[in-house]
Amino acid sequence: MEIAQRNEQTDGADQVSRARCWFKGLAEKLMLKVLEIASKTKKLGQEDPRRIIHSVKVGLAITSVSLFYYFDATYNGFGVSAMWAVMTVVVVFEFSVGATLGKGINRGIATLLAGALGVGAYRVATSFGEKIEPILLGFFVFLFGAVVTFVRFFPRMKARYDYGLLIFILTFSLISVSAYRTDEVIQMAHQRLSTILIGGAAAIITSVAICPVWAGDDFHSLVASNLEKVATFLKEFGSQYLKASSAELVVNKEFPQGYKSVINSKATEESLANFAKWEPRHGMFRYRHPWEKYLEVGNLTRQCAFRIDALNGYLTSEIQVPQEIGAKIQEICKKMTSETSLALKEVALGMRTMTMPSSSADSHIENARMEAKHLKSLLKTRSWPDSTDLLDIVPVAAVASLLIDIVACTEKIADTVKELAPLAHFKAAVVTAGQQKQLTRQQTHGREETHHIITMGESSPE
Amino acid sequence: MEIAQRNEQTDGADQVSRARCWFKGLAEKLMLKVLEIASKTKKLGQEDPRRIIHSVKVGLAITSVSLFYYFDATYNGFGVSAMWAVMTVVVVFEFSVGATLGKGINRGIATLLAGALGVGAYRVATSFGEKIEPILLGFFVFLFGAVVTFVRFFPRMKARYDYGLLIFILTFSLISVSAYRTDEVIQMAHQRLSTILIGGAAAIITSVAICPVWAGDDFHSLVASNLEKVATFLKEFGSQYLKASSAELVVNKEFPQGYKSVINSKATEESLANFAKWEPRHGMFRYRHPWEKYLEVGNLTRQCAFRIDALNGYLTSEIQVPQEIGAKIQEICKKMTSETSLALKEVALGMRTMTMPSSSADSHIENARMEAKHLKSLLKTRSWPDSTDLLDIVPVAAVASLLIDIVACTEKIADTVKELAPLAHFKAAVVTAGQQKQLTRQQTHGREETHHIITMGESSPE
Repeated sequence: MEIAQRNEQTDGADQVSRARCWFKGLAEKLMLKVLEIASKTKKLGQEDPRRIIHSVKVGLAITSVSLFYYFDATYNGFGVSAMWAVMTVVVVFEFSVGATLGKGINRGIATLLAGALGVGAYRVATSFGEKIEPILLGFFVFLFGAVVTFVRFFPRMKARYDYGLLIFILTFSLISVSAYRTDEVIQMAHQRLSTILIGGAAAIITSVAICPVWAGDDFHSLVASNLEKVATFLKEFGSQYLKASSAELVVNKEFPQGYKSVINSKATEESLANFAKWEPRHGMFRYRHPWEKYLEVGNLTRQCAFRIDALNGYLTSEIQVPQEIGAKIQEICKKMTSETSLALKEVALGMRTMTMPSSSADSHIENARMEAKHLKSLLKTRSWPDSTDLLDIVPVAAVASLLIDIVACTEKIADTVKELAPLAHFKAAVVTAGQQKQLTRQQTHGREETHHIITMGESSPE
Repeated sequence: MEIAQRNEQTDGADQVSRARCWFKGLAEKLMLKVLEIASKTKKLGQEDPRRIIHSVKVGLAITSVSLFYYFDATYNGFGVSAMWAVMTVVVVFEFSVGATLGKGINRGIATLLAGALGVGAYRVATSFGEKIEPILLGFFVFLFGAVVTFVRFFPRMKARYDYGLLIFILTFSLISVSAYRTDEVIQMAHQRLSTILIGGAAAIITSVAICPVWAGDDFHSLVASNLEKVATFLKEFGSQYLKASSAELVVNKEFPQGYKSVINSKATEESLANFAKWEPRHGMFRYRHPWEKYLEVGNLTRQCAFRIDALNGYLTSEIQVPQEIGAKIQEICKKMTSETSLALKEVALGMRTMTMPSSSADSHIENARMEAKHLKSLLKTRSWPDSTDLLDIVPVAAVASLLIDIVACTEKIADTVKELAPLAHFKAAVVTAGQQKQLTRQQTHGREETHHIITMGESSPE
């Protein structure tokens, strides 16, 4: 009996301690999860502090519009319709000004058109008598719903007016259907339109007035930084892989992998360009800024990045190039990459600061092209030693051929930027004292001087 | 006097004829525009007839939900809230079942949670007295609006729950703000929730019941057809470019450019995978189908396509390869491409029909790998004639090196599909009479037989 009691007691103690353990484990897991989320939140905020500002802006805009409910004067004017204003703010407010403007304008115009058509459809339906009215209204809703849904598949419409078409279907259905129950159709349509305009205006004003995020700015710097990433890779490739002194391939896993994001940037660039088209004049960007040309530069940069991806394959391969073959070619390839990298850096700097690309970019490209010619003629005249295995040549030849491609691509990029410059009203290049000094130094030391790569790399804004 | 009158008459006649011309021109322009739109519409419909069906489905769903307004019984139950049902259908109905389900579930759950929280916030606010109530409500709206907006930036949340988070902000603001004016908060929240459920159900049922478009099916066949596109390019490359009889490079602008769409398919694949994850069991696809593995196959296919893009560069270059160098290498390259192409076709066929990849795919890969080895050893042992210019070797070497890469990539694809097969419950391969015959023929004629490439190409479903 005593033993049984003691057993029960120990059982109870066991259960209590087990429960305690379980709770402790749970609490620890929860703490870990909370800490993980907190660190992720911090990282997200640090990566782009504009995200925090955007969140606060959205909160502010919703709160300010919800004031309509608290003041009797405005509430009596709009009644329940006031909620459309809150809804519009929540739905229209996007991260960038362009996206917000695009959605707001789409929503406003679509509501206006669909409201007018809805009232019209209602008038037509009522004129046919009470029995046919609901059938006719139903038919109209079906017809417009189906036709406009199909229009959304047109690629051009999808790109810019998808949201407007959706709101068109929505408003048309709501107005023409509610009309069956309410007699004040016009008043209803009018209230819906004006509250949506108020909500849209609140969203747009908050978006523009408090720390605006311009899609145009983002697009502009994305294109420039993609160019810089390609340039950085080439610089590293030239100095690390193509070490002329030791002709071995350096297998280095910590190579700059920034170019990989360039390969997959097409969708981001296209949506940013779409948003940017909605934006009014701001900073250096006019209303009809030539964003299409930016897209062209972006496409060419991606072409370069594809070649670089192929080059990268040779970084991880472990083929050893015999000294006698590689050295000379590698020396030339090194010059080619460094010149190309410098040219790209210059072009990227011109893009970033919106100044006409300086003539030094041209001279770097000219040098790279000369080196490419040099390489070709060297390959033509030099015959390999008889002992050479073709297998040893393959990577060298492939790298050489890819680099020649990249030089050609860089030339195209520089040309496109030159076409872009007058269209986008780039400033004329002003040579500062420091740049002048550097330029003179470059001219004095000639092509053999390579340490200005580093100078350039450090002075360009990342 | 008479002359003046006559002048006026001719003037009048002139104006009439000019106006007629103007109208005629306008009418012609309009006709042209209408015809252009009509032909575009026809093309869109022909490209994918499901677009037309989808449009009709949307029209049907909206019309059926709007019936709520016409029947007194349902209208009296929901009142003005009935419009939420119409709204939900319009907003939630997407092209594929997965997207519709994802949006519908997001919207339903978000409304439930936000409604409950909104009512709670209202209760808390009223307990503090009439003066503090609006301030507290405003604060809650601001707080939730800002925090949830920030949560939308988390990549994982963005991918699957972005719409739900948006609706959460919307519903929370609406409920807690309207609560200030209406006393029947609970009834309002309840009406909103039930109408949204009705609308969501209408959208989902229409989407699934009438000619459903499964994102999973689309994703599945996109991955398979991308593999086929790469295989088709390689087949053409082998038979056109690498003509062993004449060692010249054939400059052919009408080369299959299908692989280009593969390069830019990443975003489409990711969104389809996201939608497919929402879909229930259908056809051969279970609820937790291994879509992640499909994404892996897609990524590897894109890697192949990047290499092919580089290969394509050599198609348009006009370098002539001297007979004595190229012929032998080209012969091997031709075999490599045809074997790789066959292996890819087999793998693609296995993917498309969801059968275990047949052993012939393995043997094709094995052959390709043997040829690659053969090529390497040939390059090792053969030394070039002394007269050879290195420049002539560059394209041949580059093509060879790219092809070796592609063989390696194909191997990885086949391995990934092998991992996928049991996870996705692929059927065991059944060798039909026709296939058996073909197999025997292949075995009899050995590797030299190449016309079965064409047979394969024609028999695989595009």
